[in-house]
Amino acid sequence: MPNGAQTLIRTLVKGGVEVCFANPGTSEMHFVAALDDVPEMRAVLCLFEGVATGAADGYGRMTGLPACTLLHLGPGLANGLANLHNARRAHSPVVNIVGDHALPHKPLDAPLESDIDALAGTVSGWVRRTTDGADLHLDATQAIIAASSGSDGAVATLILPADVSWSEPGPSHTAIAWLRSDEPGPVSEQAVTAAAKALRSGEPAAILLGGGATREAGLLAAARIAAATGAKLLCETFPARLERGAGLPEVERLAYLADFATAQLEGVKHLILAGARSPVSFFAYPGKPGDLVPEGCEARELAGAAEDVTASLQRLADEVAADVKAADVTPAARPRPARPTGPLTAESASQAIGALLPPGAVVVDEANTSGLWLPGVTAGAPRHDWLTLTGGAIGQGLPLATGAAVACPGRPVVCLEADGSAMYTLSALWTQAREELDVTTVVFNNGSYAILNLELEQVGAAAAGERARRLLDLSGPALDFVALATGMGVPATRATTAEEFTSQFERALAEPGPHLIDCVVPPVF
Amino acid sequence: MPNGAQTLIRTLVKGGVEVCFANPGTSEMHFVAALDDVPEMRAVLCLFEGVATGAADGYGRMTGLPACTLLHLGPGLANGLANLHNARRAHSPVVNIVGDHALPHKPLDAPLESDIDALAGTVSGWVRRTTDGADLHLDATQAIIAASSGSDGAVATLILPADVSWSEPGPSHTAIAWLRSDEPGPVSEQAVTAAAKALRSGEPAAILLGGGATREAGLLAAARIAAATGAKLLCETFPARLERGAGLPEVERLAYLADFATAQLEGVKHLILAGARSPVSFFAYPGKPGDLVPEGCEARELAGAAEDVTASLQRLADEVAADVKAADVTPAARPRPARPTGPLTAESASQAIGALLPPGAVVVDEANTSGLWLPGVTAGAPRHDWLTLTGGAIGQGLPLATGAAVACPGRPVVCLEADGSAMYTLSALWTQAREELDVTTVVFNNGSYAILNLELEQVGAAAAGERARRLLDLSGPALDFVALATGMGVPATRATTAEEFTSQFERALAEPGPHLIDCVVPPVF
Repeated sequence: MPNGAQTLIRTLVKGGVEVCFANPGTSEMHFVAALDDVPEMRAVLCLFEGVATGAADGYGRMTGLPACTLLHLGPGLANGLANLHNARRAHSPVVNIVGDHALPHKPLDAPLESDIDALAGTVSGWVRRTTDGADLHLDATQAIIAASSGSDGAVATLILPADVSWSEPGPSHTAIAWLRSDEPGPVSEQAVTAAAKALRSGEPAAILLGGGATREAGLLAAARIAAATGAKLLCETFPARLERGAGLPEVERLAYLADFATAQLEGVKHLILAGARSPVSFFAYPGKPGDLVPEGCEARELAGAAEDVTASLQRLADEVAADVKAADVTPAARPRPARPTGPLTAESASQAIGALLPPGAVVVDEANTSGLWLPGVTAGAPRHDWLTLTGGAIGQGLPLATGAAVACPGRPVVCLEADGSAMYTLSALWTQAREELDVTTVVFNNGSYAILNLELEQVGAAAAGERARRLLDLSGPALDFVALATGMGVPATRATTAEEFTSQFERALAEPGPHLIDCVVPPVF
Repeated sequence: MPNGAQTLIRTLVKGGVEVCFANPGTSEMHFVAALDDVPEMRAVLCLFEGVATGAADGYGRMTGLPACTLLHLGPGLANGLANLHNARRAHSPVVNIVGDHALPHKPLDAPLESDIDALAGTVSGWVRRTTDGADLHLDATQAIIAASSGSDGAVATLILPADVSWSEPGPSHTAIAWLRSDEPGPVSEQAVTAAAKALRSGEPAAILLGGGATREAGLLAAARIAAATGAKLLCETFPARLERGAGLPEVERLAYLADFATAQLEGVKHLILAGARSPVSFFAYPGKPGDLVPEGCEARELAGAAEDVTASLQRLADEVAADVKAADVTPAARPRPARPTGPLTAESASQAIGALLPPGAVVVDEANTSGLWLPGVTAGAPRHDWLTLTGGAIGQGLPLATGAAVACPGRPVVCLEADGSAMYTLSALWTQAREELDVTTVVFNNGSYAILNLELEQVGAAAAGERARRLLDLSGPALDFVALATGMGVPATRATTAEEFTSQFERALAEPGPHLIDCVVPPVF
């Protein structure tokens, strides 16, 4: 008879969950032991739970399928929450398996006891504690279904008591038949008609793309609409996965800074939300509006979570842009930047990245302020995916790249990372080394939480003195990312000129396995 | 007019909160800016929130006063939760300041919005969101009072919306007068009488010490009681702060492994709980009881959270051990181990630590399996404090040592750390370097989650195969803690023989500032 852990892993594999990003503890030991019984499940050890959850997010974004995490009790889940927050904002499918004390042990309030349910509820659309092994098959299947919803609540959390894991359950109480559907979702004709009317009104309109609309089919449909109607095309500030590069129309991202975003939307009378939420500023600033929809502009949703946004865009394109074909909006090849020379700056490093980005790259962008030039210089690159910091919780880049590399063994992963953010979840590098993942990490090492120097001014606190500035400064002592990476088994080099960076980046891309470049640049702000 | 942030910091300083372990973001920028207006508040930058909260725990354990943390929204709090869990189990005073979006911004569900209250509730005995700046003085004072309760709920969390921080409040709604009291707490005569009766019953008795009872006065009173009555003296498995060494009676800690703890308590008919909770096993194991109180043994509390456990022990000692003076239970000087030679193992390294531990040391112990020999070899060391992993959430040691060093600038801090646990919050080393803290870190680098190899057997999953074992293995690639430490500005050396370790440990203690020794040892299990 299989025990609970074996039943669970078999159910997960059957439901398409084939990778487990794990940092287990005692209460998860039977799950760990069961991995040898179910070789179809690939277990990837992470040295911190925030790496495991971020990797699951990256895997989910690139495959559309949930990975599972294996986390140890409340503290293990807590350590993984920040990247689950990002995963939730990305609508990424994730199945968390959180081990818990055996059921009779819980009332004893042992040292590691804590309120797992409360923690899980902050990031999960679906939470269940299995208290009877006979329910495991059903509960795990429902977790996978919940994770596959593509909605805000696609992070599912199954709490697994140790005794449920080690006991041999009887036959499952309920078996459910469930097949992943590849059918396109429904289209709201009413929403399409309303959007078409707005676009034909003659008043300035914009389409804000997000979610599933930032992939090839959605982008082409949106570009047709824009070409036919003159609507402005924008995409959300932090898309979960934006397809870009050769053959795809370039879409401007809504700016992170509220003032710039306001300028982008100025004068717009009709805002069509295609997979994106109505835009709000990332933070509030004294005396500035948080809602970015201009006064007098009507924002309307083309497709909600229950609808298929790509199909809706295609339907709308057929309605208002029947004469414009996809080929008409497929841009000619755009120039790529030359290999840069001279001082190494965020700008010159970005030029090198734009010059060399290989075909099929998965780019993970947590470059923050140093990333300012990246969209421009990479627009002419070969086709690639761009993954961003959807929820704003830093420390996402290295784990996300790890998961993306597990998901896409044939594709080069390029992780563009800010120094401050890198320090949150740096041990992802160790997992990259262990799993021999083809990730090239560039750390923009500017010795500063540069974004906060900017924000200090934005919030009107610019008169800050020395003690305040010191809280934003990472330069004393300087972080040596070559030492940090090599300490975890990842080959690393330091670049201090544009030429050095370019040749190091080229070499790192050419060699398989992980590499890191400590890219020493001045702060942008 | 001071703004909210300035009012808050002034109130904190007035209430004895003089250190802020911070990792701020945009919503905390006015707090950061206000630091220059209130120079009495020392701000210490941490590169990850788990470092900030663990440091606050260490500071609180050593001073008895709360430090504050400064955390960025829900994700920042989430990153700090695991060490707040440990702080809660240590009854450490902590005041968390968690920045939040401006109040009008919250309904917009901006990307970083999340349920801060739910997260805070899992670790805090007191949670409040200040929505009117005029309440800030009162709310901050009440947070300090809550943090000073010495109870399970001594982690207080004040949620500070950005606009409350940046606005200039009018006069405080309420001012409260509050003075920290140094008066001893009350003693329950009834509990003392009952304990005395049990101890005089002639049946085997044991006293389990915890909380405030593990300091000099409590230990001496307990030793008098034990000497007079023959009761066995034990202390909880993971004391928050245990005073040890020269002139103090050595107290056996209750074992982590349930089998050993059961043996320690076997035959006991009366268990007096002095600041400790009734003992339960850390984890449940198939077929073993979780409650460690033997069948037929009566456990009774001498002093609860509302009483003064030290005064209660002294009262009980006067009752049952009036003839035994403190001098009678003050042991003669105990021998210290010789400097070890030969192969470097957890045992020989521990001998070196026992041989060299300097007077007044604060020892932070997250050595896990490698720490097996530490209590024995350090019993003859000069007077020192021993701080342990109260809540079982790993990644506590380096942050705890950081906070203890900030709290005790005149004392050497020795941090004994397991490799797996070190990787959780390694960036604490950077803060140690920046603040020039006198911390000597020993990383027992055994390339393994060795405790889990043991637990795998404990839970009866010993038949685990290669894939399971690989999830407990940290050796591929090997972690190079010399590179990792130097990458963050902490001088480091690697020891591979007992002689090397001993001389490196001696040198690290002799030099001011932080040092790390990568102590390469075979796994104990």
